[in-house]
Amino acid sequence: MKKIRAAIVGYGNIGKYVLEALQAAEDFEIAGIIRRDAANVPEELKNYTVATEIESLGKVDVAILCTPSRSVQSFALKLLEKGINTVDSFDIHTQVAEQHATLGKAAAQHGAVSIMSAGWDPGSDSVVRALLEACAPKGITYTNFGPGMSMGHTVAVKAIDGVKAALSMTIPTGTGIHRRMVYIELKEGYDFDKVADAIKKDAYFVHDETHVMRVQSVDALLDMGHGVNLTRKGVSGKTQNQLFEFNMKINNPALTAQILVSSARASMLQKPGCYTLIEIPMIDLLPGDRTELIRHLV
Amino acid sequence: MKKIRAAIVGYGNIGKYVLEALQAAEDFEIAGIIRRDAANVPEELKNYTVATEIESLGKVDVAILCTPSRSVQSFALKLLEKGINTVDSFDIHTQVAEQHATLGKAAAQHGAVSIMSAGWDPGSDSVVRALLEACAPKGITYTNFGPGMSMGHTVAVKAIDGVKAALSMTIPTGTGIHRRMVYIELKEGYDFDKVADAIKKDAYFVHDETHVMRVQSVDALLDMGHGVNLTRKGVSGKTQNQLFEFNMKINNPALTAQILVSSARASMLQKPGCYTLIEIPMIDLLPGDRTELIRHLV
Repeated sequence: MKKIRAAIVGYGNIGKYVLEALQAAEDFEIAGIIRRDAANVPEELKNYTVATEIESLGKVDVAILCTPSRSVQSFALKLLEKGINTVDSFDIHTQVAEQHATLGKAAAQHGAVSIMSAGWDPGSDSVVRALLEACAPKGITYTNFGPGMSMGHTVAVKAIDGVKAALSMTIPTGTGIHRRMVYIELKEGYDFDKVADAIKKDAYFVHDETHVMRVQSVDALLDMGHGVNLTRKGVSGKTQNQLFEFNMKINNPALTAQILVSSARASMLQKPGCYTLIEIPMIDLLPGDRTELIRHLV
Repeated sequence: MKKIRAAIVGYGNIGKYVLEALQAAEDFEIAGIIRRDAANVPEELKNYTVATEIESLGKVDVAILCTPSRSVQSFALKLLEKGINTVDSFDIHTQVAEQHATLGKAAAQHGAVSIMSAGWDPGSDSVVRALLEACAPKGITYTNFGPGMSMGHTVAVKAIDGVKAALSMTIPTGTGIHRRMVYIELKEGYDFDKVADAIKKDAYFVHDETHVMRVQSVDALLDMGHGVNLTRKGVSGKTQNQLFEFNMKINNPALTAQILVSSARASMLQKPGCYTLIEIPMIDLLPGDRTELIRHLV
């Protein structure tokens, strides 16, 4: 069987877990890793090509983008232009539709496939939300996140003057409402109350119940576990009170990475264009014989 | 907007709920109802065409099969031959792959689409199982059913000599193991213990913990509520202990009917062939503008 040659673009937290997910997937071959500093080769990359340019990796079927969300578009466009499929876990919900249009145009033009926002939210949660709307077209879905670390909120806290280190935890309080628990180390010479006040007034926190706490070591609190509780109460046909619930307790980057790798596989089966996970049949995410998958899963 | 013209084939329990789901769906038009006895027109069908042959309904885009599972194939083949799409909730898990091949061949030959096993299990549960395998490729999924009435088991009990009326409830005891609670009315002149023994020895019950109880009225116990608790504990990449859970508490025929109608919509968007729900993008099940759906659900 011909293996899918995948490149990892960006080698931070997600990139490391993508490496593991690719190593565990028998239908993949690791073409190499693209990073800004190609001389920086940690132990686990010793047997792979590490380069700054994708051309150095030979033929690449699909590039798995493990860069920050804000730089996904420029990386994706450059790769799609070369006819290389891309997958990403772009997570700025409000910009998904626009990015979809931009990447879709480039992908179609160059005969490539882009699967975007293929993490867990957006991503697998989006699939559950779409499925539940098909099961009960009228009703309300609540997606409750956590308890777990919010990357976006943590970065926002770190940007505030006087903050030396930070962790923002997302705590679900039900019906899609969240409490923010912010743990900070304070820089010397700063007043805790003033810094805490600046955090609470930040656009990321101003609408949520936010508690700021000073700790000796933020590092001692770090844990990459996260959770989701997604509920829908709705109407099937004219029948009220249909109740659905999806829960997960997961290692956040490990799940994101796995979904990226499953989506990289699916990218090989789509016609040129850009797709979110709700636009892809679930079977395409899985390896192996399709009749066997149907027998086993349906 | 051009509406999808759907026919309901078979007007039992599921057919009644399909009628409601079609009435609630703005993008559908009801072409009519096919039943063996077309003279039997209950109040709610007075404004619709009721006939024995599909030709009597004018143009039909899709036929929603609400017949028993065993007769789905022959109905589907006849309709596909006429170029009419079909959807069904065929639920004999062990025969899904074969039926898929048979219907797929007929559908492709006649330029039609067949979406099969589009209820909740098989159906929406299958989508969740496939999604969770993509999220955690290694691990075990348990599908726990109930508490709720099992149609198949109830029919099996009714076939046993001495049983006047019956209800078999499925009670989940975890890890995919189920207890059967069987409620029967006894025919006159029969010995309860002997009948109970025959039920417990029936192929449907012999491997499960089965309790048989005699009641004055089975009808007084009937409730169409059902439930599912589907769990997966697995490995994403090399990360163990990823925990997922899907629960629902639903009116059984209402959910089946709604998924059939959503699938009828999706049938209009597929290339000729046969599909289970894991082979269809979730967005195709939903009405409305696709960019809006992406904005709203992803």
